Amino acid sequence: MRQYEMMELVFPGKVPEGSEASVDLSAVFKKGEKTWRVKGFYAGNGTYKVRFLPEECGTYRFEVSGSVLEGPCKDSFNCEPAKEKHHGPVRAEGTALRYADGKNFTGFGTTIYAFFHQSQALIDETFNTLSKAPFNKVRLCIFPKHYNYNHNNPKYYAFERSEKGKDLKFEAEEGSQVAPNSSDLGEGGNNWDVHHPCFAFWDAFEENLTRLADLGIEADLILFHPYDRWGFSSMPQEDNLVYLDYLLRRLSAFPNVWWSMANEYDLCRAKTLADWEEIEEFIASNDPYRHMLSNHNCLKPWDWARENVTHVSWQSKQFQRVPELLSKYQKPVLFDECRYEGNLPESWGNISGKRMVQSFWRVMSVGGHCTHGETFYPGSEEAKKNTDTGESEVVWWARGGRLHGESPERIAFMRELFESFPGPLAPSPMGFSALVGKSDEEVLEMAKLAPKGFGAFLESIASMGTSERDRFICAEPTYLGHVGEEIYLRYLDTECCIVTTMQLPENGSYRIDLIDTWNMTRETVLSGVHGTVEVPCYGREYCAILAVRE
Amino acid sequence: MRQYEMMELVFPGKVPEGSEASVDLSAVFKKGEKTWRVKGFYAGNGTYKVRFLPEECGTYRFEVSGSVLEGPCKDSFNCEPAKEKHHGPVRAEGTALRYADGKNFTGFGTTIYAFFHQSQALIDETFNTLSKAPFNKVRLCIFPKHYNYNHNNPKYYAFERSEKGKDLKFEAEEGSQVAPNSSDLGEGGNNWDVHHPCFAFWDAFEENLTRLADLGIEADLILFHPYDRWGFSSMPQEDNLVYLDYLLRRLSAFPNVWWSMANEYDLCRAKTLADWEEIEEFIASNDPYRHMLSNHNCLKPWDWARENVTHVSWQSKQFQRVPELLSKYQKPVLFDECRYEGNLPESWGNISGKRMVQSFWRVMSVGGHCTHGETFYPGSEEAKKNTDTGESEVVWWARGGRLHGESPERIAFMRELFESFPGPLAPSPMGFSALVGKSDEEVLEMAKLAPKGFGAFLESIASMGTSERDRFICAEPTYLGHVGEEIYLRYLDTECCIVTTMQLPENGSYRIDLIDTWNMTRETVLSGVHGTVEVPCYGREYCAILAVRE
Repeated sequence: MRQYEMMELVFPGKVPEGSEASVDLSAVFKKGEKTWRVKGFYAGNGTYKVRFLPEECGTYRFEVSGSVLEGPCKDSFNCEPAKEKHHGPVRAEGTALRYADGKNFTGFGTTIYAFFHQSQALIDETFNTLSKAPFNKVRLCIFPKHYNYNHNNPKYYAFERSEKGKDLKFEAEEGSQVAPNSSDLGEGGNNWDVHHPCFAFWDAFEENLTRLADLGIEADLILFHPYDRWGFSSMPQEDNLVYLDYLLRRLSAFPNVWWSMANEYDLCRAKTLADWEEIEEFIASNDPYRHMLSNHNCLKPWDWARENVTHVSWQSKQFQRVPELLSKYQKPVLFDECRYEGNLPESWGNISGKRMVQSFWRVMSVGGHCTHGETFYPGSEEAKKNTDTGESEVVWWARGGRLHGESPERIAFMRELFESFPGPLAPSPMGFSALVGKSDEEVLEMAKLAPKGFGAFLESIASMGTSERDRFICAEPTYLGHVGEEIYLRYLDTECCIVTTMQLPENGSYRIDLIDTWNMTRETVLSGVHGTVEVPCYGREYCAILAVRE
Repeated sequence: MRQYEMMELVFPGKVPEGSEASVDLSAVFKKGEKTWRVKGFYAGNGTYKVRFLPEECGTYRFEVSGSVLEGPCKDSFNCEPAKEKHHGPVRAEGTALRYADGKNFTGFGTTIYAFFHQSQALIDETFNTLSKAPFNKVRLCIFPKHYNYNHNNPKYYAFERSEKGKDLKFEAEEGSQVAPNSSDLGEGGNNWDVHHPCFAFWDAFEENLTRLADLGIEADLILFHPYDRWGFSSMPQEDNLVYLDYLLRRLSAFPNVWWSMANEYDLCRAKTLADWEEIEEFIASNDPYRHMLSNHNCLKPWDWARENVTHVSWQSKQFQRVPELLSKYQKPVLFDECRYEGNLPESWGNISGKRMVQSFWRVMSVGGHCTHGETFYPGSEEAKKNTDTGESEVVWWARGGRLHGESPERIAFMRELFESFPGPLAPSPMGFSALVGKSDEEVLEMAKLAPKGFGAFLESIASMGTSERDRFICAEPTYLGHVGEEIYLRYLDTECCIVTTMQLPENGSYRIDLIDTWNMTRETVLSGVHGTVEVPCYGREYCAILAVRE
């Protein structure tokens, strides 16, 4: 047994007579004063399993019990220190993310919604691509996805069909372009027998989870979503909880899983707010390891202030709001969907590589995390590079394949830079973001503390009214982050200054590097500087200034 | 006398004994039932003038009276139809701008704040530049400007000095970098004798106004501003009104003048809101021709809903809000300051040509008007092209000189295109802008009218709350304008679609042109189309689709 690696106990047994999902099997693991309670699951083929993820070294005692066993089972094991590359689950620490072993995690995500629902050839190609790509988190769905350019049925589903669903073909209608599907309104809600998991599905799914872990990639698992023609989005709530129970029994002990309650929860019309809150509470109380847990919106943000929610998982193009959100929620801020590099007709999927890279820098230079996607229109000349499998309609963002956009190389350059920092970036108190949401009276109070020369500016901004002021502030971003007094990073975005000023601590000596985030160059331009420093710049877009304490 | 050309009556007289500004001289012009009342002014050198701008052809009778004359003077004149190129003052007509003769005016502005306060060589160079540039409106100040890269004293000031100001040198302090000046708080407020205009200043000013008119350029005259070391920004309010009275007597009959009450009114700390409202009312009631009148902000927008205000004159980077503002104010919307093409340290003055052109398209493709500026850092290699006069610190945005940025050529391309349209663009009802400022209840009502497939989207957006929704909408712009059913123009901005869809009327036949706004190309890709049309695109940024009714 190794720290941060899943251990598994296997028991033979009879096939359950009723539910194969909600079996009576649980275990208690103890180490010193600490206790972990986990549930086991039926794995098919007369086999029961109990999984556990040890995060501490040393001796654990455990006891497994349940009516599916012939009798209780007790034993102990010794957990050895982690091997290199095993860092344990990622968790929030204040506004930052860290692996369990304390290593900083900076989220360079990508999106492959239906990754595990593809042919083995395509899955293999995707893993091969990921092995060379700069991403350390992938957003992917448990259930298959029905959407533009996503019309194939998967090989397996998470559950066996119900009587009602037995003969359904689930073929996509010709040319069906999809807004959230009408099946989502409950008409298709009983096609599945959640008490009979499809074990082949889960086995394959877990194999792929492990392949991700081997590449050092977190699996941000999307548990529900509205783009559906199979009926998974409109199962009764009691079925949802059975499904979640089974999923948590099987997957919680994987070190690299995150729980994303939904992709675009607010478009899932079959679920009420109370359903979502019950789902959130169910996950939080049935996951012994407190994996990352959040919910992702289309339009209306989830209430990330809720106690069980570990981080902000926002679909948004409001890159300027990272400091505001960090301050508001005091949790890590992930832009889990902005737009994707590609050339689709849809505006969410047709930005240039420049824009994709710019989004990463806008979000991450002030301490947020960002998620990529690639969407080249099937049939376009460019999309011939989407896959070598010969399959049609392969678009990375949903199905994987090959990456050939301009952004991944630049994101790799960025990741190497960010991972050289001694800790997580946080926003520097520059710009107006501290004023967001404040009343005129509050801003006027803050204005009194400002240097004299700024009085006129602040008195004016104090009189704008909250709504107009908030929108103004969003249009006036400053992308300045720091790691304590070790690192100051200013992303210049569209500023083409030929010279600018950096404010550094008076005590200390800094080296200044100019970074061209697009051309991927880094050059030291000053050293031994402190205080107010005039920095010569390149006079072109997409550069950054990095001050490193010497 | 010609329609749309200023006529001038000149009277000899004694030098006024008291005020040379507020002289007793007025005239009534009559044509049929219509009457115009204007005031004359003392022009120095024992000369009085009365000016009038006839906008209708035909016979006018007039009577001039006042204690400065030896007796009243009556006469009449016949006004001949306008010569080509004379279109009269620009005025608002609904949300559009038109010259008095009905010709459409689309505002392609530029910014040369201290244009007329420069050496004759630099002024001449600037006019030469303007003669080849695409701009039809210039924002410029009556008073000189003190700011970064603006340290020279002008040759003349609008008034003679007071006793107090007699010996002041007004030299800029070494390296003075300027936020709104402290003199603005009233300390320097009595340096000028507004009752004694400097006639040489006004004569030169008017000569330059006429040179602008000859180039077909509107003069958006900035009457006050905070960037001051001479004391003009902090004159007593009664002096402000004497100044405005004299200005209006002299300049109102120029066809190409606009009144911009201020540049950044909200930073003029010596003036209260009541002062501004009095200024606004004074101008409106003393300008017989109702020239364009607005007020320009730094932060807090002026209340453009006020009756005397003819248009929105906004400093802002919130390009997405043009449809919202057009709908809210029902007046023309001018982005009179966004950012300037250049490489200054200051973020307002260091965007690329690409960004400048993008701003124009974002604002103007949906029926707004936009203002350019160029700001290459003095001393930078690039800035050697700023002027051939040999003068230092010449930056176009304040002092004029030469343009060498990348945007003017593209703005020229754009202007030629826009001026080929049969009328002013207006925003098409696409995107979310109609929801701005609405309550959740109001949005929910609107959602009920949406097509079924959009229900989930609209129900979610309806529950966001006004503040979050407004900010969301600002991040989701659609740049689609139209001229009736004649023209549909969609600016694709950062969208790199290889194909997209246009909704055209079912009745009618359209030609579709693809426009590359940066590379300045235009190519017909479809013709004879109507209804829902699939348009092949270039798959790169900064393109536009133009549908022209055949």
